[in-house]
Amino acid sequence: MSAKIPVGILGATGVVGQRFIQLLENHPWFEVAWLAASDRSEGREYAKAARWRLKTPIPQSVANMRVSPATPDGAPKVIFAALDASIAAEMEPRFATAGHAVITNSSALRMAKDVPLVIPEVNPDHIKLIECQPWRKKSGGFVVTNSNCSAMGLVLALAPLQKHFGLETVMAVTMQAVSGAGYPGVASLDILGNVIPYIAKEEEKMEEETQKLLGKLNGAGVIPAHFKMSAQCNRVAVEDGHTESISVKFSKKASPNVISDAWTSFRGVAQQKQLPSAPEIPVRYMDANDRPQPRFDVEFGRGMTTTVGRLRPCKVLDWKFTVLSHNTIRGAAGAALLNAELLKVEGYLD
Amino acid sequence: MSAKIPVGILGATGVVGQRFIQLLENHPWFEVAWLAASDRSEGREYAKAARWRLKTPIPQSVANMRVSPATPDGAPKVIFAALDASIAAEMEPRFATAGHAVITNSSALRMAKDVPLVIPEVNPDHIKLIECQPWRKKSGGFVVTNSNCSAMGLVLALAPLQKHFGLETVMAVTMQAVSGAGYPGVASLDILGNVIPYIAKEEEKMEEETQKLLGKLNGAGVIPAHFKMSAQCNRVAVEDGHTESISVKFSKKASPNVISDAWTSFRGVAQQKQLPSAPEIPVRYMDANDRPQPRFDVEFGRGMTTTVGRLRPCKVLDWKFTVLSHNTIRGAAGAALLNAELLKVEGYLD
Amino acid sequence: MSAKIPVGILGATGVVGQRFIQLLENHPWFEVAWLAASDRSEGREYAKAARWRLKTPIPQSVANMRVSPATPDGAPKVIFAALDASIAAEMEPRFATAGHAVITNSSALRMAKDVPLVIPEVNPDHIKLIECQPWRKKSGGFVVTNSNCSAMGLVLALAPLQKHFGLETVMAVTMQAVSGAGYPGVASLDILGNVIPYIAKEEEKMEEETQKLLGKLNGAGVIPAHFKMSAQCNRVAVEDGHTESISVKFSKKASPNVISDAWTSFRGVAQQKQLPSAPEIPVRYMDANDRPQPRFDVEFGRGMTTTVGRLRPCKVLDWKFTVLSHNTIRGAAGAALLNAELLKVEGYLD
Amino acid sequence: MSAKIPVGILGATGVVGQRFIQLLENHPWFEVAWLAASDRSEGREYAKAARWRLKTPIPQSVANMRVSPATPDGAPKVIFAALDASIAAEMEPRFATAGHAVITNSSALRMAKDVPLVIPEVNPDHIKLIECQPWRKKSGGFVVTNSNCSAMGLVLALAPLQKHFGLETVMAVTMQAVSGAGYPGVASLDILGNVIPYIAKEEEKMEEETQKLLGKLNGAGVIPAHFKMSAQCNRVAVEDGHTESISVKFSKKASPNVISDAWTSFRGVAQQKQLPSAPEIPVRYMDANDRPQPRFDVEFGRGMTTTVGRLRPCKVLDWKFTVLSHNTIRGAAGAALLNAELLKVEGYLD
Repeated sequence: MSAKIPVGILGATGVVGQRFIQLLENHPWFEVAWLAASDRSEGREYAKAARWRLKTPIPQSVANMRVSPATPDGAPKVIFAALDASIAAEMEPRFATAGHAVITNSSALRMAKDVPLVIPEVNPDHIKLIECQPWRKKSGGFVVTNSNCSAMGLVLALAPLQKHFGLETVMAVTMQAVSGAGYPGVASLDILGNVIPYIAKEEEKMEEETQKLLGKLNGAGVIPAHFKMSAQCNRVAVEDGHTESISVKFSKKASPNVISDAWTSFRGVAQQKQLPSAPEIPVRYMDANDRPQPRFDVEFGRGMTTTVGRLRPCKVLDWKFTVLSHNTIRGAAGAALLNAELLKVEGYLD
Repeated sequence: MSAKIPVGILGATGVVGQRFIQLLENHPWFEVAWLAASDRSEGREYAKAARWRLKTPIPQSVANMRVSPATPDGAPKVIFAALDASIAAEMEPRFATAGHAVITNSSALRMAKDVPLVIPEVNPDHIKLIECQPWRKKSGGFVVTNSNCSAMGLVLALAPLQKHFGLETVMAVTMQAVSGAGYPGVASLDILGNVIPYIAKEEEKMEEETQKLLGKLNGAGVIPAHFKMSAQCNRVAVEDGHTESISVKFSKKASPNVISDAWTSFRGVAQQKQLPSAPEIPVRYMDANDRPQPRFDVEFGRGMTTTVGRLRPCKVLDWKFTVLSHNTIRGAAGAALLNAELLKVEGYLD
Repeated sequence: MSAKIPVGILGATGVVGQRFIQLLENHPWFEVAWLAASDRSEGREYAKAARWRLKTPIPQSVANMRVSPATPDGAPKVIFAALDASIAAEMEPRFATAGHAVITNSSALRMAKDVPLVIPEVNPDHIKLIECQPWRKKSGGFVVTNSNCSAMGLVLALAPLQKHFGLETVMAVTMQAVSGAGYPGVASLDILGNVIPYIAKEEEKMEEETQKLLGKLNGAGVIPAHFKMSAQCNRVAVEDGHTESISVKFSKKASPNVISDAWTSFRGVAQQKQLPSAPEIPVRYMDANDRPQPRFDVEFGRGMTTTVGRLRPCKVLDWKFTVLSHNTIRGAAGAALLNAELLKVEGYLD
Repeated sequence: MSAKIPVGILGATGVVGQRFIQLLENHPWFEVAWLAASDRSEGREYAKAARWRLKTPIPQSVANMRVSPATPDGAPKVIFAALDASIAAEMEPRFATAGHAVITNSSALRMAKDVPLVIPEVNPDHIKLIECQPWRKKSGGFVVTNSNCSAMGLVLALAPLQKHFGLETVMAVTMQAVSGAGYPGVASLDILGNVIPYIAKEEEKMEEETQKLLGKLNGAGVIPAHFKMSAQCNRVAVEDGHTESISVKFSKKASPNVISDAWTSFRGVAQQKQLPSAPEIPVRYMDANDRPQPRFDVEFGRGMTTTVGRLRPCKVLDWKFTVLSHNTIRGAAGAALLNAELLKVEGYLD
């Protein structure tokens, strides 16, 4: 009976690389066959090369795997990537050129014209951009990206609103978890009892990615959504889960009931095709006046569900609400994995 | 050798009451002569009645003072109040009726038509409302209030902007310290590794108080400032210091330099009259791209200075910035104390 | 196809009561049929009466259950109790008198001569004390207790050492999680960035319970283990998981290998009879020089495994090591549940 | 009108280097004249080279100072050092050889036979070891060290006990602040909601330094105190302040009153000679049953006082208590500064 598809992980020792390994354990379609990381780790056993920072143990099958050099030779066709942007900018094209399907969490190529930035529930048709990629034409390789962790939860919450009510303006203020900064990432002396009102390049990414994700595919590119958008990004002393205070202006009139219905009834291709990593409910609405909260709500839907709450009128725009999303699952490794599953059912991994 | 003015504290055992005691230690004009708290504390030594939660020790002169009943008999003329709103609603009028000057941090009467809500640097003329109070006419007593801790830092940052550029729209998202909730206040199980996107009645207070503070005195009342305002309030795991992500729209064009100059050069009657608790600089602007931060910046100006930073254009409104203010000093006890000093130099405490 | 045994929970709305409900969801032998809490909650739906503080949602079957009065009338025969000690002291005998099997986490009766204090892996024979209880003789009812959360992890780590090497001296310093104090429990202003070197009555409980648990059943009572023991208990800013720095002196010579073997090979009746809540491995030894750590290791064995690490020689006694145990699972609700399972297989719940 | 003594700081940009600068601002005897750090910082303005992590601002006189190369040329005679041990091992002898008085917080030379490890209140006579140093004989230069931050608070608490009651055994378990690990030091992902039961080489340092500090000067060396000592060191989520749970055995009988008197009445040469950085009270005893606590007590005596509390009998040794000490002031920069002041009054800096 059919074997699983072997996959490789670029940047396997980092916080997101670890999440890939965790989420791929017992995956019905994929299995980890190859790991690469920085030169320092090359040739070492994974369990020794990585400083494992997750609550579940390293899967046994991966613990003793040797870390390979980060080159296409010998790597499986399907590659998950979790590299720093500067390294990804060079490495991902190299793997695509060599014929690999690069499904990446890195920001390096997200805004490239012919690179799809995809959330399966939101804009699955954008994957067609793959066919415009020169790599695809030459070797069959391609690159597909998912969004920044701060944009992810927001876009899942906005997609049903855009569809039902039209979006004119979006204002977002984030309170982001430290795991979003990788490891060692944020120093404890910087965050204990503190808020840091700055994350390098985060506001720019959040603004432009949100508009590309909610934009329209138009031949060889995407026309960004036309609503106005402004983001302010803060770091707080939370381990996992980005909380966001959002205000929006709609094109059409709405009421709390139809808005929460729009969220609750929202489903996408990920749910219709029952992708293994798809959450049953992509957007959950909580009624309680003090939720969502990262400590209690972030793991809902195995970290793949965005939770929304605190819907109330805004005296400047139309509506205010709070969004919560798991930044290293739905906002990183889980997002790439769901993209891989979409690519699989669409025949791109054959 | 002029004697100091004896003052009393209503609600002396709480977090804000403790700050009053701390700030009044060695005050050049006032000295604590009377303490009252709930029935439970009555008759006990202050050091035993209060669960002291500050880093400096209880002043010796106060430690052994007996907690008095919370009634006007025997209380000094000048009363600082730090009571829960529901108790304040009844207690403050009773003291004012009995001829006391009630300088209060409570929200109970802040929005009452004839009760001044005052920040000495911002709207010192509003104290004239005192003369409209029925208590004043009968017994000489009156009530003066300061704002909620979340409005305080914001209004100090907005006042120079309003003056120079005119305000059309203000959007605020707060990340508030736990000390704002009093003691025991927020349970540790609720806030460790967490964000709580809700503080009861805080958004309403922040919106309406900001507009009253920046409004115009008009005979027996205040015409609220006409700009649009929306607030979202969150609690974070910070001990002291409310951080706020702000967006504003001006009536006039501005540039980063003139905006930061407006902040830096801002002075008010508190500075001109050299009130003892006035900070040299009411609004400080920091250039560093990741400041202000509560852990490092909240105690500037002995907790009386508002710090602003991260000024940058906003794609929806005009400008974005971050505000930081000490919530139990400038946002509570220090605010009331500065109001008392203003009242003193204006002759209201004679 | 035998039906499940209906069980009731006394103190169902508290932190430990919630854990009972969570652990009993889908339990193969027991099902929650009755909930009681303080008068304030009586008659309300559970989901409204409880301030649910766990990451998994309230089980649907329990959410809409009405909270019953805390009296034996109408309560199931098997009762799990999670009451404050002062209330338990009166309530637990009342239920036992009425014929109920009271399996309690409360400290009230733990040290009573005829009340078993039991850990199934350590001293399962102590449950025979039930037969000495006057309630048992009259109505069939009885009380069985589990230990304090700080003693639990320690005793599981000590039991194999006692058996193999004999214990002469035990010194323990704890760093305990805030969930051990219930809800609201520790105020955030008390624990953020802090250590509290005091937990009321904890050191006494830890010392005397450890000696009773490791003591010998002797007719109608237990002869406490004779080793010397001293405990110091501290509270730290951790959500779940008590970490303990331990030093011990043995009667016999040992080596690191035989000690870690003693831990690793340790099994008890809970494992032999495959009780549903028994962890596969009651005591896990970790080799890494910086483990165990609560954030990463506390949930091992679904929170029922004690993890030990950092074994090294002690210059005063013989050996030093670190113990970690989940305080509200293994140290509270899970402990009582495992005791219930032991009672079931021993025929006490028939 | 004598000029101040110019001093230099080696390792000026680190956490301890910053404390030196902070503590030397407005010092009556010393003034910062020279700063050195790693090559990366050389030639840059201090305010740009250092990532300042203290709550008070960088002193203006230092902010614009250029960072010098870390070589003796051009450095002042008196050098404070805060270098990593591996660098200090090479650098400190080089400065001493060149005739400098090196007053260091580094561990590199603490246990060297002819290098004094000194606390002015405890063993001021040990500075005579300077005369045994080959550097001293050749160039006049010398090295004086202070202890590790975990040993410092303990030794101040033990010294009066040793004097009055004799020490036979000391057991210590620490809960140490993150600032002790420098910057960036401990990653936030490692410490939020966590305890780390390991600090590299800390237990060894704590044990051997405690015994050298409380030992006897004997010609060209120190005979370590003969009591038995065992330490276990943990890291907790606290910014500043090491808390320690201590058990001791005395040679003589004692009672709580005489013990607390021994602490409270303890004074040393630092107090007698009124050294500028000496706390009025080197050891403070607090009666409250839940103190000392780092958040509230660590800054007592401007961070130079050790606070002791929770004195109670120990069932294994004689007495248990809790010690709190500021790890970057009394346990690092403040310790070196006090040593410099002692050297000054003893004529070693002339």
